[in-house]
Amino acid sequence: MMRTRPLKVALLGCGVVGSEVARIMTTHADDLAARIGAPVELAGVAVRRPDKVRGGIDPSLITTDATALVKRGDIDVVVEVIGGIEPARTLITTAFEHGASVVSANKALLAQDGATLYASAQQHGQDLYYEAAVAGAIPLIRPLRESLAGDKINRVMGIVNGTTNFILDKMDSTGAGYQEALDEATALGYAEADPTADVEGFDAAAKAAILAGIAFHTRVRLDDVYREGMTEVTAADFASAKQMGCTIKLLAICERAADGGSVTARVHPAMIPLSHPLASVREAYNAVFVEAEAAGRLMFYGPGAGGSPTASAVLGDVVAVCRNRLNEATGPGESAYTQLPVSSMGEVVTRYHISLDVADKPGVLAQVATVFAEHGVSIDTVRQQGKDGEASLVVVTHRAPDAALSGTVEALRKLDTVRGVASIMRVEGE
Amino acid sequence: MMRTRPLKVALLGCGVVGSEVARIMTTHADDLAARIGAPVELAGVAVRRPDKVRGGIDPSLITTDATALVKRGDIDVVVEVIGGIEPARTLITTAFEHGASVVSANKALLAQDGATLYASAQQHGQDLYYEAAVAGAIPLIRPLRESLAGDKINRVMGIVNGTTNFILDKMDSTGAGYQEALDEATALGYAEADPTADVEGFDAAAKAAILAGIAFHTRVRLDDVYREGMTEVTAADFASAKQMGCTIKLLAICERAADGGSVTARVHPAMIPLSHPLASVREAYNAVFVEAEAAGRLMFYGPGAGGSPTASAVLGDVVAVCRNRLNEATGPGESAYTQLPVSSMGEVVTRYHISLDVADKPGVLAQVATVFAEHGVSIDTVRQQGKDGEASLVVVTHRAPDAALSGTVEALRKLDTVRGVASIMRVEGE
Ligand SMILES: NC(=O)c1ccc[n+]([C@@H]2O[C@H](COP(=O)([O-])OP(=O)(O)OC[C@H]3O[C@@H](n4cnc5c(N)ncnc54)[C@H](OP(=O)(O)O)[C@@H]3O)[C@@H](O)[C@H]2O)c1
Ligand SMILES: NC(=O)c1ccc[n+]([C@@H]2O[C@H](COP(=O)([O-])OP(=O)(O)OC[C@H]3O[C@@H](n4cnc5c(N)ncnc54)[C@H](OP(=O)(O)O)[C@@H]3O)[C@@H](O)[C@H]2O)c1
Repeated sequence: MMRTRPLKVALLGCGVVGSEVARIMTTHADDLAARIGAPVELAGVAVRRPDKVRGGIDPSLITTDATALVKRGDIDVVVEVIGGIEPARTLITTAFEHGASVVSANKALLAQDGATLYASAQQHGQDLYYEAAVAGAIPLIRPLRESLAGDKINRVMGIVNGTTNFILDKMDSTGAGYQEALDEATALGYAEADPTADVEGFDAAAKAAILAGIAFHTRVRLDDVYREGMTEVTAADFASAKQMGCTIKLLAICERAADGGSVTARVHPAMIPLSHPLASVREAYNAVFVEAEAAGRLMFYGPGAGGSPTASAVLGDVVAVCRNRLNEATGPGESAYTQLPVSSMGEVVTRYHISLDVADKPGVLAQVATVFAEHGVSIDTVRQQGKDGEASLVVVTHRAPDAALSGTVEALRKLDTVRGVASIMRVEGE
Repeated sequence: MMRTRPLKVALLGCGVVGSEVARIMTTHADDLAARIGAPVELAGVAVRRPDKVRGGIDPSLITTDATALVKRGDIDVVVEVIGGIEPARTLITTAFEHGASVVSANKALLAQDGATLYASAQQHGQDLYYEAAVAGAIPLIRPLRESLAGDKINRVMGIVNGTTNFILDKMDSTGAGYQEALDEATALGYAEADPTADVEGFDAAAKAAILAGIAFHTRVRLDDVYREGMTEVTAADFASAKQMGCTIKLLAICERAADGGSVTARVHPAMIPLSHPLASVREAYNAVFVEAEAAGRLMFYGPGAGGSPTASAVLGDVVAVCRNRLNEATGPGESAYTQLPVSSMGEVVTRYHISLDVADKPGVLAQVATVFAEHGVSIDTVRQQGKDGEASLVVVTHRAPDAALSGTVEALRKLDTVRGVASIMRVEGE
């Protein structure tokens, strides 16, 4: 029962991702038609530079007037792969107003303004899908929103940025420092000329906000996400991690508080045991670990970026949205009914690995231990190494609130015998 | 916009899975209602033994007349967790005829009669969902059918049976033989009293048929799946595997032929390199590796069975089907438009690890090598070990058609100098 009038797709942006979307729509048109139940047609492609040669795309489809394209009125699905906040946001809401559904890969926009976009989609009876916005090709948004819709998710913990994972993996496997590993990532095209969004954790924080919102059925804004980059991770940290049977990953962690009354979302480097499934995620791969009450521990693994993997996710959404249109229905919209508040980082409870430079004399350990005890942070193990009047003390704690740990560190810095706090790193995944 | 008239769910079967479905429906009723947009109500529970005490279930809901329950006419969703072919099949088609959609966890039935069930669902405008039928709690059917609907899947390779993975993992980690590891699995409740369906690969073969059909958009019957159990895997095989940097897993492998014109589906033990993501899947966990043209290499990991993980998958489907009903729509139906034929095992191309007991005298290797060459099977490495006139020869081949390998082995057996073929194992994942 194939409908013959094609569904029309407008492509906004034809860069790394958009060009692959266009290519696959052309080369796999028959498969897409069979799966949707109607042919699907590329009706227009908005770009900034109209004269750039774009292989395989009919030049008559190219336009610089994205607004006119989304206002045409005959478009079924708008695929937004421009990126950034504006004009993407206005184009998406204009699309809804003119009767089109939207598929987007724009994590920055979704994290910042997801609620507004969802409201606009709902008001106009349209779909908003964005599988590609988190972890590229890995099916993650749909499993969280649909497959686990009958379950209660308690934690989502993942490697959601390929650039930083590539750098950390290099540091781990070669003993390189941060700068050296970053240079290699840049040379190989894994890091952008300005790597700030990746290495400072902004990209991962946007994804954490999106994931936390979906997992806990509440609204989590970008500002709610605690964020710490990985530029200060050193070769010495990796050496310490190895001694503990761990490696270091930049993690996005979304958790429901033990009492269920609030949630947290954070991005920071952390030590995880080598036996944890996330420890063996190499190179620029992404992986997301999900803990749900009934399902238990799940993991999703795959390429987190790249033109064609991301296009795969976009096209999966295009097929779903097209099927919905043929059904005259829409898929699941925003689900934020729990309205759970987002707690600050101080309330996060986890373990810590703290490396101190201390004077090499008797009584230092007792002093340090007293400070931990006074702040209610219980110590799991201590390792002392001394030479020439200088010593280092590595303390691994039991689970404690982040605020208690911060208080501990502040007090430690005031001790005469503590020359410096060489590093503080959270320990996850146990 | 919550509808107040509840959607009605009939539960067929209230055993390991069904009792958990009932429990979660009761304890998480508010969450389910919020996610669906309407309350959902357990309207009846069909069992065999009505007098068994079933905690938390209103006794007035219990019935032994499953047929009457599915014929009631006011049921929205029938959850079939009885298992087996009959009465499950008739109950499902009766449900469709009486206006209900169906969620099932029944891999045996889906593998044997999926096409009939789909046809009946379509004829009556109902949904048929079965996420729980393959790999328990792991979202897999929905990602393959929906997230990857814009991509071309070339291969699905997975550990889809927890019992056999538990046994093989034990053999690998402790050096135990098959029987000893099976006994432990039985004692711990990982293997059933009669483990035939698991250890002979029948359960995995049903899942392979389902996965191949979905991945390649064609029909794959249970009979089309080549099946070899793992009862003959020995401690010596594990020792050989270790020498190659491999471990042994029982794999379900669905592949598109290199020319794209046909597909294959098979279940057998295989050596895989320790560096492969599937190699580190421990205990009774399941994991499925998917290779798609655009998305690249994805992996899905989690608990493959158990009451509550399986119930999570069932309830995800219940939520989806209920949402569809509120939308007066149905989800994706059968997709078998490619009509790709299924080739036999002889046409599968892979690598082999063959262990031969041979006479320890000069010229044996030359003889053996000649046989391989005559059958067009190219040798990658050979390892010879000899003592007291007896020797063993371990040959690892390059990729060759299974038929060529079978021919080789047949010819080898006829050589005077070959005392026996100790083991033949396929090598995958490279
Ligand atoms: N790249 C990935 O691996 C990846 C992975 C996941 C998600 N994403 C997301 O996908 C989106 C696109 O990423 P990308 O890597 O494809 O970006 P890109 O290569 O920079 O492409 C951006 C495209 O948008 C066009 N464009 C920019 N401003 C425009 C405007 N005002 N009007 C019309 N067109 C405009 C550009 O036109 P010109 O071609 O004329 O310059 C270009 O075609 C972003 O939201 C990104 O976060 C990307
Ligand atoms: N267990 C798992 O981990 C798992 C995982 C994935 C998929 N599955 C699938 O889920 C399904 C159910 O498995 P299960 O482990 O829950 O099985 P189970 O524990 O044996 O439960 C079967 C249930 O069906 C009832 N039943 C049997 N025959 C019936 C009939 N003729 N009419 C009405 N009720 C009948 C039984 O009633 P009584 O209670 O009165 O005996 C029992 O409640 C199977 O298809 C299985 O393959 C199971």
